[in-house]
Amino acid sequence: MDAVILCAGKGTRLLPLTENRPKPMLPVGGKPILEYIIEKVENLVDNIYLVVKYKKDVIIDYFRDHPKVKFVEQGDIDGTGYALLSARNFLGDEFLVINGDIVFEDRLKEILLHENAMGLVEVENPKEFGVVVLDRESNIVEIEEKPENPKSNLINGGIYKFQSDILDILEDLEPSERGEVELTDAIKELIRERKIKGIKLKGYWNDIGRPWDLLDSNRHILKGIKREIKGEIGENVIIEGNVVVEEDAVIRHNTVIEGPAVIKSGAVVGPLTYIRPYTVLMEDTFVGNSSEIKNSIIMRGTKIPHLSYIGDSIIGENCNFGCNTITANLRFDNKPVKVNIKGRVVESVRKLGVIMGDNVKTGIQVSFMPGVKVGSNSWIGPNLLVDKDVKSNTFIYKIDEKKVKRL
Amino acid sequence: MDAVILCAGKGTRLLPLTENRPKPMLPVGGKPILEYIIEKVENLVDNIYLVVKYKKDVIIDYFRDHPKVKFVEQGDIDGTGYALLSARNFLGDEFLVINGDIVFEDRLKEILLHENAMGLVEVENPKEFGVVVLDRESNIVEIEEKPENPKSNLINGGIYKFQSDILDILEDLEPSERGEVELTDAIKELIRERKIKGIKLKGYWNDIGRPWDLLDSNRHILKGIKREIKGEIGENVIIEGNVVVEEDAVIRHNTVIEGPAVIKSGAVVGPLTYIRPYTVLMEDTFVGNSSEIKNSIIMRGTKIPHLSYIGDSIIGENCNFGCNTITANLRFDNKPVKVNIKGRVVESVRKLGVIMGDNVKTGIQVSFMPGVKVGSNSWIGPNLLVDKDVKSNTFIYKIDEKKVKRL
Amino acid sequence: MDAVILCAGKGTRLLPLTENRPKPMLPVGGKPILEYIIEKVENLVDNIYLVVKYKKDVIIDYFRDHPKVKFVEQGDIDGTGYALLSARNFLGDEFLVINGDIVFEDRLKEILLHENAMGLVEVENPKEFGVVVLDRESNIVEIEEKPENPKSNLINGGIYKFQSDILDILEDLEPSERGEVELTDAIKELIRERKIKGIKLKGYWNDIGRPWDLLDSNRHILKGIKREIKGEIGENVIIEGNVVVEEDAVIRHNTVIEGPAVIKSGAVVGPLTYIRPYTVLMEDTFVGNSSEIKNSIIMRGTKIPHLSYIGDSIIGENCNFGCNTITANLRFDNKPVKVNIKGRVVESVRKLGVIMGDNVKTGIQVSFMPGVKVGSNSWIGPNLLVDKDVKSNTFIYKIDEKKVKRL
Repeated sequence: MDAVILCAGKGTRLLPLTENRPKPMLPVGGKPILEYIIEKVENLVDNIYLVVKYKKDVIIDYFRDHPKVKFVEQGDIDGTGYALLSARNFLGDEFLVINGDIVFEDRLKEILLHENAMGLVEVENPKEFGVVVLDRESNIVEIEEKPENPKSNLINGGIYKFQSDILDILEDLEPSERGEVELTDAIKELIRERKIKGIKLKGYWNDIGRPWDLLDSNRHILKGIKREIKGEIGENVIIEGNVVVEEDAVIRHNTVIEGPAVIKSGAVVGPLTYIRPYTVLMEDTFVGNSSEIKNSIIMRGTKIPHLSYIGDSIIGENCNFGCNTITANLRFDNKPVKVNIKGRVVESVRKLGVIMGDNVKTGIQVSFMPGVKVGSNSWIGPNLLVDKDVKSNTFIYKIDEKKVKRL
Repeated sequence: MDAVILCAGKGTRLLPLTENRPKPMLPVGGKPILEYIIEKVENLVDNIYLVVKYKKDVIIDYFRDHPKVKFVEQGDIDGTGYALLSARNFLGDEFLVINGDIVFEDRLKEILLHENAMGLVEVENPKEFGVVVLDRESNIVEIEEKPENPKSNLINGGIYKFQSDILDILEDLEPSERGEVELTDAIKELIRERKIKGIKLKGYWNDIGRPWDLLDSNRHILKGIKREIKGEIGENVIIEGNVVVEEDAVIRHNTVIEGPAVIKSGAVVGPLTYIRPYTVLMEDTFVGNSSEIKNSIIMRGTKIPHLSYIGDSIIGENCNFGCNTITANLRFDNKPVKVNIKGRVVESVRKLGVIMGDNVKTGIQVSFMPGVKVGSNSWIGPNLLVDKDVKSNTFIYKIDEKKVKRL
Repeated sequence: MDAVILCAGKGTRLLPLTENRPKPMLPVGGKPILEYIIEKVENLVDNIYLVVKYKKDVIIDYFRDHPKVKFVEQGDIDGTGYALLSARNFLGDEFLVINGDIVFEDRLKEILLHENAMGLVEVENPKEFGVVVLDRESNIVEIEEKPENPKSNLINGGIYKFQSDILDILEDLEPSERGEVELTDAIKELIRERKIKGIKLKGYWNDIGRPWDLLDSNRHILKGIKREIKGEIGENVIIEGNVVVEEDAVIRHNTVIEGPAVIKSGAVVGPLTYIRPYTVLMEDTFVGNSSEIKNSIIMRGTKIPHLSYIGDSIIGENCNFGCNTITANLRFDNKPVKVNIKGRVVESVRKLGVIMGDNVKTGIQVSFMPGVKVGSNSWIGPNLLVDKDVKSNTFIYKIDEKKVKRL
C-alpha cells in the first residue's frame, strides 16, 4: 500500500511565513511538519507520494534522498481532490491520504484496518471545519463544510483510507466555481455507495492554519522530546529539563536554558543568555548576550545578538536583529491578541508576539506590538514601535524632531 | 500601662503610595512602618491601641492576630489630638503615645521614666517641623509649628508619655479652622500646669512624610539586618553581604545579589539578575533576566520580568513591567530631583527614580524620568518617555508618525 | 644620537577625540600612541625631544618623569619642518625624526644604518599620502604629495634619519601660503645633494588620521599582548584568550571576557557583563550589568553602568552613559559607514559605532546611529535617536506628544 500526502497548497493565512516555503515545510519542534507525517507512514507503506506545487523545490530539496518518497506535481486545477487525482497513475487498489499541514499523534493503526475510513477529531468549536455526522456503527452519513449550526463535534481530521474507486469519482467531478476539485465532494458521493468508517484520532491533532497553530504544535512536539546534550557547552551553563543541543551547536558561558527546547546544529547561544521553554533555535541561529527567547521558533540563520527579548513569536530565516529588539506579547487588557489574517482582524491567543518572514533587518531598540506581522526582506528603522503589519520589501522608519540648546 | 499609636492619617504627600493603604502600612525593610513600632512597645505595655480610620482594613487585616493589639476608630474630627481622644475609654492613668508614621531607633527606656515626656530630635533644618524650646532642666517651655525663625534645633519626635489629664485638655479643645484637634495644642496647655520632660531620642529617627523618606528609612533598617539565606538558591548564584532570603523565595541561576537586601517569601529572582544594596523585594514579586534593582522597594506581587532597571524607586503592589522598563534616577545637572508634592514642586534628593502606585502596567521599552509619580491602575504605553506625573486610572501613550519606502 | 618626535599637531580630522588632547596622546591598546614610539627609540638614542604645541600640557604631564624625554615647543610657524627646526639647538650631527601620530611595528634597525633615510610603506591606495619614487639602489628620487596618478605604491612613512644639514635647508625655506614649513619640502631639496635611502618598514604601519584608524591600530596592538591577570577576579568569571587585567582592576561575578582585551587599573567590570575582543577599558572606567563592549576604546573615568551595548566605538574620558545606551555599528545596506570629517562626508569602514568626546552624558535608552560624532560636554536627552553629529557643549533632546485616556 502507498500513501499520498497533499503538500501543494500555499498557506495564505500563514503569510509571511509561507512567502518562501509551502506550509508543510514550516518547522515545529525543529523539523518540518511534513517530516513528522513521513516518519509516521514510512514503515506502514511502500511509497510516499508527495503532491507538490507551490514552492515545490523546498520540499523536493529536503526529501529527495528519502528512499520511499516520490514527488507528483499537481496540475492546473486546485483543490485537495485534484491533488489526489494528480497521483492516480502511481496508486494501487488502496492507499492512505493525508493532508500535509496537520500535526497529529495518532499512529494510524486503526484507520488502516478499514477499506474506507476517515480520521475524525472531536473539537469544542467545529464551525470552522468540515463537520461529520456518524451513524450508530460509526459510518459517516454526512459532511458539512463550516456549518453555522454544526450537527456534531466531530470534524474531518484530514487523514483518509481509500480504495481506488475514489479516484473514479474525482475524475467525474466538475471543478467548483472557485476552480477547485475538493476531496470532500468526492467523499460525499462515495458515502452513497460505500461505508466510510469514522475513526476518532488518538491524542494531539492540529490543523496548521494560522501562525499561533504553529506555536501550539511546536509546544506539543517539544513536550515529547528527550534530553540529549551533544554540542559544545561552556562554563557555568545551566541546562534544565528536556533540552536537545545538537552536535556542532555551541552554548557559551553563563547561559541558562530551561527545557523543553531544541538547539539545532550550528546554532550559537550565549554568553549570558536565557532560553526558556518551548523555544526552537534552528540551524545556524545566534542568540547572544542578555537576550531571552521564550515559546518561539527562530528559523535558520537568524541572528539575535544582544539585549533582545523574543516571546511567543515566529521568526523567519536569516533575519538580523539590532541590539535591544523587544517583542510585546500581551495586551494591557489581557484580551486575545488581534491578528490580521487575509485582510480580516481575528482574535488569536492571549500571548502572541511577532510573526516575521525571512531576511528582515531590525535597527537598534525596535519594539514590536503583539501580533504584528513583518513581511520578508523588510528593514525596520531604529527606535521604531511597530504597531501595524509591515509589508514585504519595505523600509519603515521614523524621524524624531529634536531640540537643541547650548550648554 | 498602655500605648496608643496614631494610624488614622491619609499621608497625602505620599500619594500614590497611600492610595490603597494608610501611611503606617508602607513597608520599609520588608515590613510596615507600624510593625516596627509595635515590636518596640509590645514588651513595654499591656495593650496597644491602634487609632485607625483611612483604609483601616489594611491595618486590621494585618495585625488582627496580635495578642496585645486593639483597634479604635477615629471619629469625624481629624487631627492627632482627636485621634488620641478616640481611645480615651480604654486608657488608664498613664500611657505612651506614638505617631504611626515614624521610623526610629530609640528603645523608649528614658521616656518611660517620666510622668510627662516628649521625644525630641535634633535636626539641621527644623523649619518644617514642630520646634521645641527647653529650659535648663530639659522641660519643654515652648512648641512652635513650622516657624520661620526656629528658636532651637530640637523638634517634636512624635513620641509622648502622658498622664490621663491630657485627655481632659483635649476634650475641652475646640477644633481648629481646618476642623482638626491637634495634640500639640493640648501639650501647649499642659506645659502651663505640668512639667513635660524633653527627651532626646537616640539614634536614627525619620518622620515618613515624602517618598524619599521611605527610601531613607528602608536603608536604615537594612543596615541592621543579619544574613539569613533560607529559600531555594540556584547554581552560580552569588549572594554578598547581609541578605535575607526568606523561605519559599527562589533565587535562580547565575544571579548576583549584593546586600543589604531582603527577598521575601514567594519572591522569584533570576536567572541572570542583579540585585543591589538597599533593595527589598516583597512577597510574590518577580525580577527576571538581566534586570537590575537598586535602593528600591518593590511591593507584593509586582513583576519585573526582563531587561529592566529600577533604581531609587518605590513601586506599588501587583504592577507588571514590560520588557526594558528603565528608570532614570539622576539629573544631568546633578541637582536634587524635583518632585510634585500636593501640587507644589519640591527638591528631593540627588538620586530618585519613579514613585508608583498599585496595579500599574508598563509597555515595553518605557522610560521614567527622575522623580515622576504614576498613580494606581494606570497603563503606560510602549516606548513612552514618562517625564510628567501620571494620574491614577489613566492610559498614556504616543503614536509615532512613520515613513515607509519600498525597497 | 638623539630622536625628535613631532607631537605639535592638532589632529582636526580626529575631533572630537582631540578636543582635550593632542593626537599623539590618543590611546591604543591602553597607552598613548606616543608612548609606543618612545618605547621603540628609548634604547636607541640618548635624548628624545618631543616637539609640542597643541594641548602640550597633556604630553608634558604624562612623560615628564621619563629620563630621556625633553620637551621643545614649536614656535608660531606651523608644519612638520618648522617643528623639527624648533629642536635645532639641541640636536647633534645626526638624529632620528618620527611623526608622533603613527603606529608601526618596524624596529628601526635598518633605518639607523644609513646617513639619510626615510621609512616607506607599501599601500594599495597611495593617493592620499606622500608618494615616493626610488631609483634602482633604493634612493629616493621624487616625493609627490597626494598625487592624482601615483607613480608608485610606496608612501612616506613619517620616520626619518637625517644629518644636521637638513636643518640648514629648513632654515632657508620660506613658509608656504598656508604659513607652514613642511619637512618634505626640505627633503625634496636634500635629495639633490645627498642620497636618501628609502627603507621599507617591516610589519604593521598606520598613520592615525581618522577615528577608525585608531580602532585599527588598537586591534593591531591588542593582537600582540600577552595574557596577564592581576586584578581582583570575582566568582564564575570567564576570561578567555589574551587579556590584561591590571592590578587594582576589578572583574565582578559572572562576567565573561573574550580577549584580546585590556582592562586598566581602577576599572570595574561586571557583574554579568560581556567584554568582547579588541576592547580597551582605560583607568577608572566602569562597565556594568548586562552591558557589552566590543572592539572599542573607552577612555579614563567613563561609566557604562547597565544594559548598554557599545561596539566599534571610541568614547572619551569621564562620560556617563544612561541605562540602555545602545550603539548601532552597521548599515542596513552593508555599505561603509559614512562619517563627517572636516565638513566632508567620507566613507569609513563597514562597522563603525559612535565617536565621542569627553564628559558627555547620555540619558536612558539613547541610540546612536553608525558613525555619528558627539562633542565634549554635551548631554543627550533620554530616548533620543542620535542620527547626526552633536556639537560640543550642546543639550539635544526631544519631546514626544502624548495621548491620555481615562481608564
